[in-house]
Amino acid sequence: MNLSMIRYILGNVLAVEGLLLTPCSIIGYVYGEAEAQVYLIIGVCTLLCGLMLRWKKPENTVFYLKEGCVSTALCWIVMSALGALPFVLTGEIPSFTDAFFETVSGFTTTGASILMDVEALSQVSLFWRSFTHWIGGMGVLVFVLAVVPLNGGSHINLMRAESPGPSVGKLVPRLRYTARILYIIYVVMTVIQIILLLLGGMKLFDSVTLSFGTAGTGGFGIKSDSIAGYTLYQQWIIGIFMVLFGINFNAYYFILLKHFKEAFSMEEVRAYLLIIAGAVAVIFINILHSCQSAFDALTKAFFQVASIITTTGFSTCDFDLWPTTAKLVLVLLMFIGDCAGSTGGGIKVSRFLIVGKTVRKEFGSYVHPKSIKKIQMDGKPIEHDVVRSTNVYFMTYLMLFAALLFLLSFEGMDLTSTFTAVAATFNNIGPGLGEVGPMYSFAGLTVFSKWVLSFAMLAGRLELFPLLMLFHPTVWKDGFFSRKD
Amino acid sequence: MNLSMIRYILGNVLAVEGLLLTPCSIIGYVYGEAEAQVYLIIGVCTLLCGLMLRWKKPENTVFYLKEGCVSTALCWIVMSALGALPFVLTGEIPSFTDAFFETVSGFTTTGASILMDVEALSQVSLFWRSFTHWIGGMGVLVFVLAVVPLNGGSHINLMRAESPGPSVGKLVPRLRYTARILYIIYVVMTVIQIILLLLGGMKLFDSVTLSFGTAGTGGFGIKSDSIAGYTLYQQWIIGIFMVLFGINFNAYYFILLKHFKEAFSMEEVRAYLLIIAGAVAVIFINILHSCQSAFDALTKAFFQVASIITTTGFSTCDFDLWPTTAKLVLVLLMFIGDCAGSTGGGIKVSRFLIVGKTVRKEFGSYVHPKSIKKIQMDGKPIEHDVVRSTNVYFMTYLMLFAALLFLLSFEGMDLTSTFTAVAATFNNIGPGLGEVGPMYSFAGLTVFSKWVLSFAMLAGRLELFPLLMLFHPTVWKDGFFSRKD
Repeated sequence: MNLSMIRYILGNVLAVEGLLLTPCSIIGYVYGEAEAQVYLIIGVCTLLCGLMLRWKKPENTVFYLKEGCVSTALCWIVMSALGALPFVLTGEIPSFTDAFFETVSGFTTTGASILMDVEALSQVSLFWRSFTHWIGGMGVLVFVLAVVPLNGGSHINLMRAESPGPSVGKLVPRLRYTARILYIIYVVMTVIQIILLLLGGMKLFDSVTLSFGTAGTGGFGIKSDSIAGYTLYQQWIIGIFMVLFGINFNAYYFILLKHFKEAFSMEEVRAYLLIIAGAVAVIFINILHSCQSAFDALTKAFFQVASIITTTGFSTCDFDLWPTTAKLVLVLLMFIGDCAGSTGGGIKVSRFLIVGKTVRKEFGSYVHPKSIKKIQMDGKPIEHDVVRSTNVYFMTYLMLFAALLFLLSFEGMDLTSTFTAVAATFNNIGPGLGEVGPMYSFAGLTVFSKWVLSFAMLAGRLELFPLLMLFHPTVWKDGFFSRKD
Repeated sequence: MNLSMIRYILGNVLAVEGLLLTPCSIIGYVYGEAEAQVYLIIGVCTLLCGLMLRWKKPENTVFYLKEGCVSTALCWIVMSALGALPFVLTGEIPSFTDAFFETVSGFTTTGASILMDVEALSQVSLFWRSFTHWIGGMGVLVFVLAVVPLNGGSHINLMRAESPGPSVGKLVPRLRYTARILYIIYVVMTVIQIILLLLGGMKLFDSVTLSFGTAGTGGFGIKSDSIAGYTLYQQWIIGIFMVLFGINFNAYYFILLKHFKEAFSMEEVRAYLLIIAGAVAVIFINILHSCQSAFDALTKAFFQVASIITTTGFSTCDFDLWPTTAKLVLVLLMFIGDCAGSTGGGIKVSRFLIVGKTVRKEFGSYVHPKSIKKIQMDGKPIEHDVVRSTNVYFMTYLMLFAALLFLLSFEGMDLTSTFTAVAATFNNIGPGLGEVGPMYSFAGLTVFSKWVLSFAMLAGRLELFPLLMLFHPTVWKDGFFSRKD
């Protein structure tokens, strides 16, 4: 295994983290907070650490998928551990387990919190907490790709490990160029949301942090009641932008290139919007009788559906009190997730599309045994490899889900809480139901459960394989503990 | 579509049902019950119906998988509808919906009941109820195959539609011969269980009905407290026989042929027994503190694990009161199910084995991208077709499961009850947790939910495709409503 390349990439990621962490202290100084100094010191240290690690360029830049997975997983773990330090050293989250959970929840854009009282945090910590969402949403390694020259094979192997969705085929040819475009779209859309929130009378600090949470489909709020206290206009803006950030960014790329037909005919985006419309309709009807008005019901239904399917996790009401059908729809949406190539989590709409088409094809073969049809997406045949790896993904997902359920069951919560706690972290959503519902936090869990769920969040964000690769014996035997490199 | 063949097969199945139903009345006459006459009349009518339908032999015996699916699905529906009539006409279950639910639950070997007080039934109805388990366990069409001459292609297409498990490859060459051997094993094992229960001091009627419930992995008891009232010896006999009937019958076939090595090296059987041992161990530790003695805990843990993994559904205690981990393990077992080629339901151990091997292979390909290994089972490579259809099975299963959850959510039960009600019927187990736990029944559900769950039981027993094929437009357009045959 090419350990020096892994070191080099880790160095780059830490340098970027240091560069992002240091200026956060400015927020603290603006608000006159003592915590600012901690952010400055840790930021500079992280930067120096990163620069040291990337000092010596590796001679051998050959880089396989195995290395891509391992370095992605390592980067995310180290990045989270360092990102947790400010919380610990400012004393705002004294336990490292809690701080690590919170930071993993941030970077993985989950939004599950161990804080009982969010509003007690300093402004600089609130800012950093929301900023982790924004950083994690697009992926740190993809950012590194956009700025650091690597040879082509390495790019795609890193991209495959970090990017969500079954295939990154479309992005391959001009990877660095595309990565930059994607970041520009991301920044511009975030800025538009901030401006629209400011126009709606929201404070600058709230606009920026909430837009970070929306853009990364994260879900950390800065108030104890999440988004419930904001105006209807602000709720709708956030709701709509959640949906927009859940769309495959390729669609925006097509729009930029003025390929409108391709943008609007993307099957995944259509399916995603259809699912949202269907879910909103069902929940609207189901909760109508318990709401003040039809518009109130629509606002609540739309906001919660948008928040859950995009795996953001903001809330404007306690949906744990909703009727069974509405709750069940939300639980099902937890698994679907948003589009591939977006900033969100979950299994992804495109995987469900591929699977749905496979099943339909199988039925067809029962009726017409001799027909040989290839499954198509957006008018192009889906390669057999993609179908196979989608199937494998589902199966790995289910097995890991069962294992996580088992580990969390020792906590002794009721089954619904246990199930939704795993679903909400593994799919990077945030709040679940019952004891981990939108009005509660993960604070009461044991240390063991917090590590289990931290693992779940990382596994979900990195789409299983990169993190699981760390447990593969070959990676240790022939990798970390091998002298021939 | 070959409608006359479908008619012919349906006729055979109904004739068999009539032949089995008529002698049940003898039980009623022995106990001097007025209900006996109803069974005699319906039995004779069903027999005559069946004979009429099979009177004219079809000229064209060509038969494809499509027809195999459709006739299997139709046979099971009609068979259940006729089997429900005695309950309605004796007035013991006056509602047809309830009687249909109960009979489907019987034939599909589910064991979910709408009866509040089982002991109020007449002896003849109790007998018929348990007998449906025994009939459904091995499959009616397979029985028809064993006695009715069809050409080879038809056999395999019927077998594929009715038999549980991903592949019936091993049974192909001498299908009719094998079907008979399987039935003989089934009968002999049932008789052995009856004798062992009699030796333990159980009454003949109880021994026979409970053995039917065990053999078919059904789960209808004849007492309100299921098996809790029987002696420890009787509980262990039933527990062990549940496990035995959950083993792939090919293993017994190998033993009969004195191929002991093949029998004991079957990977699926080993995995099945390992899962049972692991689950018993976890639950034993988890419930130990709440039991009277270690042996008591072991008895309860073993019985409930055996009952759930084999999808039987007997109970000796209210496991809804167990701690979360124990309950969760039972819920996970609900999905695993027993071996392919057994009488039980669930997804089947072999499917999980295939999927596990696929995932392991995928990880291997990350580490050694160029290795081309075929997945093996019992030392033989698994064909690509089997892997693909296993994947498709899982996906169809999940989608149907989600749809059933949605339909049942209108019932307004809590999420755990809703989830386990679907899991317990779709996997042909019987009791779930919460409002459908072992101490309750499905009596309180709405008519709509009862039909939904009846569908779930049939879909689970026929392994999805045959029943779903009934909804395929081609089957209607070019099948039932077409004049060219």
